[in-house]
Amino acid sequence: MKPIVSILMGSLSDWPVMQPAATLLNDFQISFEINALSAHRVPEKVVDFAKNLHGRGVRVVIAGAGGAAHLPGVVAALTPLPVIGVPIKSSNSIDGWDSILSMLQMPSGVPVATVALDNARNAAILAAQILATADPELFDTVCRFKADLAKKVEEANAELGKIGYEYRG
Amino acid sequence: MKPIVSILMGSLSDWPVMQPAATLLNDFQISFEINALSAHRVPEKVVDFAKNLHGRGVRVVIAGAGGAAHLPGVVAALTPLPVIGVPIKSSNSIDGWDSILSMLQMPSGVPVATVALDNARNAAILAAQILATADPELFDTVCRFKADLAKKVEEANAELGKIGYEYRG
Amino acid sequence: MKPIVSILMGSLSDWPVMQPAATLLNDFQISFEINALSAHRVPEKVVDFAKNLHGRGVRVVIAGAGGAAHLPGVVAALTPLPVIGVPIKSSNSIDGWDSILSMLQMPSGVPVATVALDNARNAAILAAQILATADPELFDTVCRFKADLAKKVEEANAELGKIGYEYRG
Amino acid sequence: MKPIVSILMGSLSDWPVMQPAATLLNDFQISFEINALSAHRVPEKVVDFAKNLHGRGVRVVIAGAGGAAHLPGVVAALTPLPVIGVPIKSSNSIDGWDSILSMLQMPSGVPVATVALDNARNAAILAAQILATADPELFDTVCRFKADLAKKVEEANAELGKIGYEYRG
Amino acid sequence: MKPIVSILMGSLSDWPVMQPAATLLNDFQISFEINALSAHRVPEKVVDFAKNLHGRGVRVVIAGAGGAAHLPGVVAALTPLPVIGVPIKSSNSIDGWDSILSMLQMPSGVPVATVALDNARNAAILAAQILATADPELFDTVCRFKADLAKKVEEANAELGKIGYEYRG
Amino acid sequence: MKPIVSILMGSLSDWPVMQPAATLLNDFQISFEINALSAHRVPEKVVDFAKNLHGRGVRVVIAGAGGAAHLPGVVAALTPLPVIGVPIKSSNSIDGWDSILSMLQMPSGVPVATVALDNARNAAILAAQILATADPELFDTVCRFKADLAKKVEEANAELGKIGYEYRG
Amino acid sequence: MKPIVSILMGSLSDWPVMQPAATLLNDFQISFEINALSAHRVPEKVVDFAKNLHGRGVRVVIAGAGGAAHLPGVVAALTPLPVIGVPIKSSNSIDGWDSILSMLQMPSGVPVATVALDNARNAAILAAQILATADPELFDTVCRFKADLAKKVEEANAELGKIGYEYRG
Amino acid sequence: MKPIVSILMGSLSDWPVMQPAATLLNDFQISFEINALSAHRVPEKVVDFAKNLHGRGVRVVIAGAGGAAHLPGVVAALTPLPVIGVPIKSSNSIDGWDSILSMLQMPSGVPVATVALDNARNAAILAAQILATADPELFDTVCRFKADLAKKVEEANAELGKIGYEYRG
Repeated sequence: MKPIVSILMGSLSDWPVMQPAATLLNDFQISFEINALSAHRVPEKVVDFAKNLHGRGVRVVIAGAGGAAHLPGVVAALTPLPVIGVPIKSSNSIDGWDSILSMLQMPSGVPVATVALDNARNAAILAAQILATADPELFDTVCRFKADLAKKVEEANAELGKIGYEYRG
Repeated sequence: MKPIVSILMGSLSDWPVMQPAATLLNDFQISFEINALSAHRVPEKVVDFAKNLHGRGVRVVIAGAGGAAHLPGVVAALTPLPVIGVPIKSSNSIDGWDSILSMLQMPSGVPVATVALDNARNAAILAAQILATADPELFDTVCRFKADLAKKVEEANAELGKIGYEYRG
Repeated sequence: MKPIVSILMGSLSDWPVMQPAATLLNDFQISFEINALSAHRVPEKVVDFAKNLHGRGVRVVIAGAGGAAHLPGVVAALTPLPVIGVPIKSSNSIDGWDSILSMLQMPSGVPVATVALDNARNAAILAAQILATADPELFDTVCRFKADLAKKVEEANAELGKIGYEYRG
Repeated sequence: MKPIVSILMGSLSDWPVMQPAATLLNDFQISFEINALSAHRVPEKVVDFAKNLHGRGVRVVIAGAGGAAHLPGVVAALTPLPVIGVPIKSSNSIDGWDSILSMLQMPSGVPVATVALDNARNAAILAAQILATADPELFDTVCRFKADLAKKVEEANAELGKIGYEYRG
Repeated sequence: MKPIVSILMGSLSDWPVMQPAATLLNDFQISFEINALSAHRVPEKVVDFAKNLHGRGVRVVIAGAGGAAHLPGVVAALTPLPVIGVPIKSSNSIDGWDSILSMLQMPSGVPVATVALDNARNAAILAAQILATADPELFDTVCRFKADLAKKVEEANAELGKIGYEYRG
Repeated sequence: MKPIVSILMGSLSDWPVMQPAATLLNDFQISFEINALSAHRVPEKVVDFAKNLHGRGVRVVIAGAGGAAHLPGVVAALTPLPVIGVPIKSSNSIDGWDSILSMLQMPSGVPVATVALDNARNAAILAAQILATADPELFDTVCRFKADLAKKVEEANAELGKIGYEYRG
Repeated sequence: MKPIVSILMGSLSDWPVMQPAATLLNDFQISFEINALSAHRVPEKVVDFAKNLHGRGVRVVIAGAGGAAHLPGVVAALTPLPVIGVPIKSSNSIDGWDSILSMLQMPSGVPVATVALDNARNAAILAAQILATADPELFDTVCRFKADLAKKVEEANAELGKIGYEYRG
Repeated sequence: MKPIVSILMGSLSDWPVMQPAATLLNDFQISFEINALSAHRVPEKVVDFAKNLHGRGVRVVIAGAGGAAHLPGVVAALTPLPVIGVPIKSSNSIDGWDSILSMLQMPSGVPVATVALDNARNAAILAAQILATADPELFDTVCRFKADLAKKVEEANAELGKIGYEYRG
């Protein structure tokens, strides 16, 4: 099946942070591909790759990068598809601030939909929400996911009740 | 025509920052509505509003807010639709840092697609890109928009040439 | 006995940080309840919970959260009771800055009484001071607590004396 | 009538920032006093002042200060009353960060209830909420205030409707 | 004469910040060219431009950009020439922090020689120093420039003497 | 009379920020000299100047600088005298953060006594306190100065009383 | 022998950070005392202690504290002696920023001579430099100390030579 | 062979961070020397060393330092050669911010070519690029290095393919 989401990362070392995006897309039955591409080490390959995304049937891009994190912005410059950026607090990052600002602060005309630091899973949920705007079945999946979130909080609360920590006044 | 994008803002004073989003959606012929809603002043109205968005036919939400900017996150918690957040450097904001972090750092399960500080226009472009994933005509509009961006840079470069500032060595 | 302080936290994982609040309230013989509630995962439950706080006899709320920490603000929006916020440096937080700014920088009209990062114990002391404004017995407890603080400093100083590190010139 | 709220500020130049607290307390019919006291210039007077607050019938303290903003913390060290801190972005402050951190990050045992930068009005609302925990009439005032907040948002929304900015597609 | 320094900027609005670089290169009799090129708006043109720099005889690149400032990094990825980055505190920048981090924190293998915020003149001096490593005449110019700097400080000190502000004890 | 305090600044443009130091030293009848010296433009002159300070009878140094503010640290490296640093928020500074960190964070062995941003007057007071440790007459001056500070606060408080803003409940 | 330097710390847990100050004062044969005193837990004791410092013969104060670090400022408010502040990155500090800003940004009239984060040794060196302004013997000790610093760097360089890492081209 | 690159570091403890610069220069067959020199502990030696660099045949300087990192700036003040600065996140640094700002924010006239935090390898690559502007053979080496970078990314991507993580929908 042709991938409709393309997961990119700046280097192989970003995979542990990006894997939850793949996991969630699998859970949601959304076809995807994964690639490591560096805006700084193979810039021309990034250009070709980004320009061909739409033609290959991809509809949403998820790109993670750390430090001076240009990958999501460069891809966004080259494709009309929505690009979701995952700032990564990699070892060469200044507590994640560089990663966040390098993709959040894109200039007028070229947005990157930035999510929380290291939160590739949220990027995948956002990709699903985007695709669900025109896919009623996927929309139902998203709704069930949100209901499950609520259920887990109730279980957490029940768990808290079991701790038995309460007023002994 | 029923709005498919809903533009929200935390207070009336955010309108000058949010107006470019409305302008761009008009340019792109995307129907929209605008509302001022405060997550902190009318929380229950926000709940009702957010829960009814999908039923009313809205497909993408754009929410701008400043300071402890909860509006996009609260709406994202209540709707399965994709929510785009515009952090606003309002007068009560600490140089925009509070606005950015309050919407970017959403917890796992509830993403907000955050764009650059005060960049409502980019939020509207992102909304168009999201809708265009399932709308070939709108996709063409987005492609033309990106081509226009390029043309403007070439004009800027020509302008720079006219300045006549060059090596006189 | 009906709880007069309600301790909330965004997720079960916040419990180790919030527990000192429960311990202090027990020490002060102030009745309390504890709940895990997420402003983003069960927003409607938060609405119901917050609206019923006063009716159930609760008089002060302590809410801890990390990252884009909306819980204290959302509860403050829905109850006339004073809400004390504990910013938590959770694993998904940017060194605590997001947690602090998301609750400190509340808009005009809806204050959250924010205490130091991860300092749930100070939140409980503040709750006691608030309740003590109309409870002479509790006021005495607070005064004794402050006297004990002083005594511990004197003991610390005595301890320092025992280290025997002094001028050998 | 004896003041039950004491408004303090570090210097006369803080008055424009602190005045909204006085205005709101007047609106809420809460008796108050105002004083300029510097933790660094008249430290002993601050000690006397703080120690006598409770004896004079004061029940809540609001203290505003900028830069290395010690006033709220020093007063909190000397009185068992709840102390609300207003960080002020004065001319000698580093964008307000010093003012915020100097009062927010109080050590264990001595909380300062910190509100948003320059938001003295929120400090007064919090003081009212604290006093209202034991004063049903004031509690009603707080509830009416919150209802008014909501009404103003609805008026803002109506205003937005009048702007007549809408989809012209 | 063929340019040996290429001055790039992300947009025409960066020209006032970048102009001092052109002025200094003229003063040093170093041939240069100026172009406005956006890594995000004309990414493919940037690729072509960067790849041809060396072939056209350019030996040093100076690139200024603001916000998520990718231009210097993208050019550095595509040319073996040394690239000097000028972070610009443009209107869409967060006090310059985004501009600095987006070019300073480049990944291993692709350095950008970053200079102070808005300091295009220092970028040009650095370019001159780089070219002077293999050009004795230019080296002499750099040495004279540094001697002039010293002379100006002595004049400033003389000026200070004229103010006549001195001890009147 | 030979100067015992030497006021240095990185450039003539720092004079308006540094002038209050001169004023206070005059008020305290402490002899001083003023010089503009740049650690980066006349480094060797700074070396000579710093090495001769003690021999000329100077006993305390006050050095102000902005941006990458090396002057106080370089002087401290070259003289055994105490060096007081005044971080200056000059036009080329990033909100003063660079100025502060460049002089505060000196390595072990070479302290710079750093005072508040732009607060040259406090540097002069500190210089006076240092000299007063061995000068009973100057010590009395410092004591009178502190008493005056207190008097001004009392006048400010009286002023606040005149504003007549009080409870009208 | 009566102490002429008084080392203070906010709590016993600050001792490991402050100990190097004691060690250096011993090395320099400067008499000192050490005390743990909290501006927030025993405020009145701090007042008495600070007011009596000069009378007891103390000539320089070194005060270390973390978080909302008021101790050096409060002591500086109460004594005409020079006060050196050591910001401590304690467990309850936000990476040390709160500790630094709470003591660096003191208001006009009440300086605290702030040294680098956690650098109590530099505080002691500064104390020695201050006392040496009127003590030729101690001045010689300071000069020898600075000469030793230089010798250690030369040894370090020799060490680097032994590593034998050099050009093998 | 006479060194043409001089690697400096503020202290021996910086060697592990600086070593990759030496390794890369060896790989590129560029002759170099290494020295530990402290701008604050042996300032005069730094002056002599810096002034003699050019005379000894050195053409590019790489200087690493942490905290108030003055070494690169002081050397840049004393030599007309290009100076590359490596900010080091040493144990006495505030997360690297002080190191970055102390060398990036150099005043007009005295640039330091600053690279990413702790990235000595990038400093060496930049040095090679500078020298290659006048050395065709070295230029080829730089070009091969960049081609290798690209090859490694392709290998990383192949590796990612082997992980076998793909859509199982």
